[in-house]
Amino acid sequence: MDTKITLTEEQIPRQWYNIIPDMPGPLHPVINPRTLQPVTPDDLLPIFPMAIVEQEVSNQRWIDIPDEVRDIYRLWRPAPLFRARRLEQALGTPAKIYYKFEGVSPAGSHKPNSAIPQAYFNKKAGIRRLATETGAGQWGSSLALACSMFGLECTVYMVKVSCTQKPYRKSMMQLWGANVIPSPSEFTNAGRSILAHDPDNLGSLGIAISEAVEDAATHDDTNYALGSVLNHVCLHQTVIGLEAKEQLKIAGDYPDVVIACCGGGSNFAGLAFPFIADRATGKQVRCLAVEPASCPTLTKGIYAFDYGDTAKMAPIAMMYTLGHDFMPPGIHAGGLRYHGESPLVSQLYAAGAIEAKSYKQNACFEGAVLFARSEGIVPAPESSHAVRAAIDEAMLAKEEGKERTILFGLSGHGQLDMGAYDAYLSGNLEDYEYPEEKIREALERLPKVSL
Amino acid sequence: MDTKITLTEEQIPRQWYNIIPDMPGPLHPVINPRTLQPVTPDDLLPIFPMAIVEQEVSNQRWIDIPDEVRDIYRLWRPAPLFRARRLEQALGTPAKIYYKFEGVSPAGSHKPNSAIPQAYFNKKAGIRRLATETGAGQWGSSLALACSMFGLECTVYMVKVSCTQKPYRKSMMQLWGANVIPSPSEFTNAGRSILAHDPDNLGSLGIAISEAVEDAATHDDTNYALGSVLNHVCLHQTVIGLEAKEQLKIAGDYPDVVIACCGGGSNFAGLAFPFIADRATGKQVRCLAVEPASCPTLTKGIYAFDYGDTAKMAPIAMMYTLGHDFMPPGIHAGGLRYHGESPLVSQLYAAGAIEAKSYKQNACFEGAVLFARSEGIVPAPESSHAVRAAIDEAMLAKEEGKERTILFGLSGHGQLDMGAYDAYLSGNLEDYEYPEEKIREALERLPKVSL
Repeated sequence: MDTKITLTEEQIPRQWYNIIPDMPGPLHPVINPRTLQPVTPDDLLPIFPMAIVEQEVSNQRWIDIPDEVRDIYRLWRPAPLFRARRLEQALGTPAKIYYKFEGVSPAGSHKPNSAIPQAYFNKKAGIRRLATETGAGQWGSSLALACSMFGLECTVYMVKVSCTQKPYRKSMMQLWGANVIPSPSEFTNAGRSILAHDPDNLGSLGIAISEAVEDAATHDDTNYALGSVLNHVCLHQTVIGLEAKEQLKIAGDYPDVVIACCGGGSNFAGLAFPFIADRATGKQVRCLAVEPASCPTLTKGIYAFDYGDTAKMAPIAMMYTLGHDFMPPGIHAGGLRYHGESPLVSQLYAAGAIEAKSYKQNACFEGAVLFARSEGIVPAPESSHAVRAAIDEAMLAKEEGKERTILFGLSGHGQLDMGAYDAYLSGNLEDYEYPEEKIREALERLPKVSL
Repeated sequence: MDTKITLTEEQIPRQWYNIIPDMPGPLHPVINPRTLQPVTPDDLLPIFPMAIVEQEVSNQRWIDIPDEVRDIYRLWRPAPLFRARRLEQALGTPAKIYYKFEGVSPAGSHKPNSAIPQAYFNKKAGIRRLATETGAGQWGSSLALACSMFGLECTVYMVKVSCTQKPYRKSMMQLWGANVIPSPSEFTNAGRSILAHDPDNLGSLGIAISEAVEDAATHDDTNYALGSVLNHVCLHQTVIGLEAKEQLKIAGDYPDVVIACCGGGSNFAGLAFPFIADRATGKQVRCLAVEPASCPTLTKGIYAFDYGDTAKMAPIAMMYTLGHDFMPPGIHAGGLRYHGESPLVSQLYAAGAIEAKSYKQNACFEGAVLFARSEGIVPAPESSHAVRAAIDEAMLAKEEGKERTILFGLSGHGQLDMGAYDAYLSGNLEDYEYPEEKIREALERLPKVSL
């Protein structure tokens, strides 16, 4: 009666799964925001190494994981798969609940799964420094860790207000040797132009992206790294689902439903894509993306071409979006704040190949507290969305008196997010639902792409 | 070439190793502070269940771990053993460095190894609530977790100043359902008498111990739980060393030296005692306890009968001590602040069976930063003492041009201690060495025990 299913280092996947050849139809082109024409490799090479550009558009189903990347993965992978027996008991459900725990990475989340290969491919391409942006700091700390492993310098433009609100993640980046710059900053044109109008600007993810991209584009020895959304990031994260499949095989089980929280989409993609691949062999598995009601990209957004950032400097992609000038409400506790969505995840959702659901945050924290008190682990606020949805699936099974096998992704631990738990436990966490009329307004501001 | 050696759940130890029958000579009696006569079981039963009292004095070498305890251990045990290949490379040492990582527990440290069985034995004895004290919160959060797993109520007297300085660990306890009371409080005579003289008293571990013991002693349904020092706590922690031995066997290795940080002693005991047991079979392994220069109990303290707490209410034990009114300097960043030392560890040290060494904190953080930048994991400030000592052993091997096998205990992660890293990285961490004259003064205040 195993509770925790572990694999050996030998069983760390040797290849990432690339869903592109298995997509329902061809990919939409990515559009250059200046020319409004499809992006070419030449547009991307100033900020990404060739290996990453190739992965972004590859039609190869399996892509080798370099030994140097697997060597670093060994520091925490294979990540454990747990059977949540104590949670099942607490719920009195006939459902079997499994969760894949990615909080065992040194940064405490799944993000290093992509940070490590991105650092590696850049190092191999002769790059000396990586620039990136971070909000709450999950991605920034993961890239700082990755750069430290490969001897790269790392510059993180961190949303200014987060530097104050999340000082611990800032410290982790510095511990791993990164240079953390509060954004907007005086170091870029993008930053300076904001500060010229508004010296007290507290920053946003959109502004920080613009600064990091500009930094990379204007320095020959520097590239840019993004922590979600793009195809190659989804690709790297598939180690999650590939391992989970092996572990469920050991348990003699297969999920009826796979559940993961969804912001930019790479965490959901990482767990779900390898299961979606099984559909070719006739296996039926539902895949459920869970997002916050305060940033309901899939459940309330529209499927359209939109800018990747607020400043309209990042490429335009066909994706679910709330509008590139979306500002998440300040009361929202846990990540998952991006206005858009991975184009791959978006296309699957538009094709009806996956499901989506949104939750208000109090419901998520309620689930997370029940989880922590039965399974011990404190979920990251982001992961609490998947916890909540898994609990609801298990309770539905109970109502229906049916067994079912649920797999969800516990993408990170929440030990650095205790402030949000405090707010929940003291009844001070406000719920917020993103209003439909705001989305209708945002429609007016989408780029006009005609191909 | 394995980096991480994992065991299966089946390999979680089925028995704890009790070192008492293998000690160099009989144990010294523990003394009742009121009568100055040896403690009897009747003195202890108001605050501990019989099973724990029996473990405290048992002469049985192996003590069964109940299935109910192993079932909770499964949530994170077996804990991984790592070969620190990247650290070895960074040091250029011929030494092989292994570390046993206990930071994978839900509370982030080794403390739940004893919190879980303590909660279990109390639950089984019909106890409804446990009371304890906590300083920085490592032990309090572990006991809160354990009580949550067994449906016990939990009251934690937390040093008042720590409630403000370590709010996240307080939140973790509350998340797991504990009632956290800033100490000194109005809930106990001990607390009230302090507040009557000094309403703004910020608390100390000694005062918090007094409050928790009084709470337990004055409520029939409530017992007390201690997180280190006592024999049964050392016993429970031996799962660390027992697993490490199995893992090293898989690696085909055996340590020349075992290194662990040492405060109250249970972490050191947990890793080292199972290796000390091997000496009976002729194996020679050095065991090194590492402590802060600001609380140098073994390296500068004296071996004498002393009170377990500042208020002279806890039993008197023969141990290394800095004097029961020892106040650790405020500048000291990481735990390990107890004035005394596990009587078992003390007796071994007095007999020359183990070694001890102290480090100033900047040297420890220097080692921890090197470790984090090569191995990824952020060490707890407590664990950084072992990291530093392991690095020095490895560098000595390099100087001597000799191979040697080093095993050290990474007792916890430091993600909730980033403030201390900030202070170190910005050059604001002060070193402090506890002055010898203070220890000589403290000698005057030891209890006069004559048996």
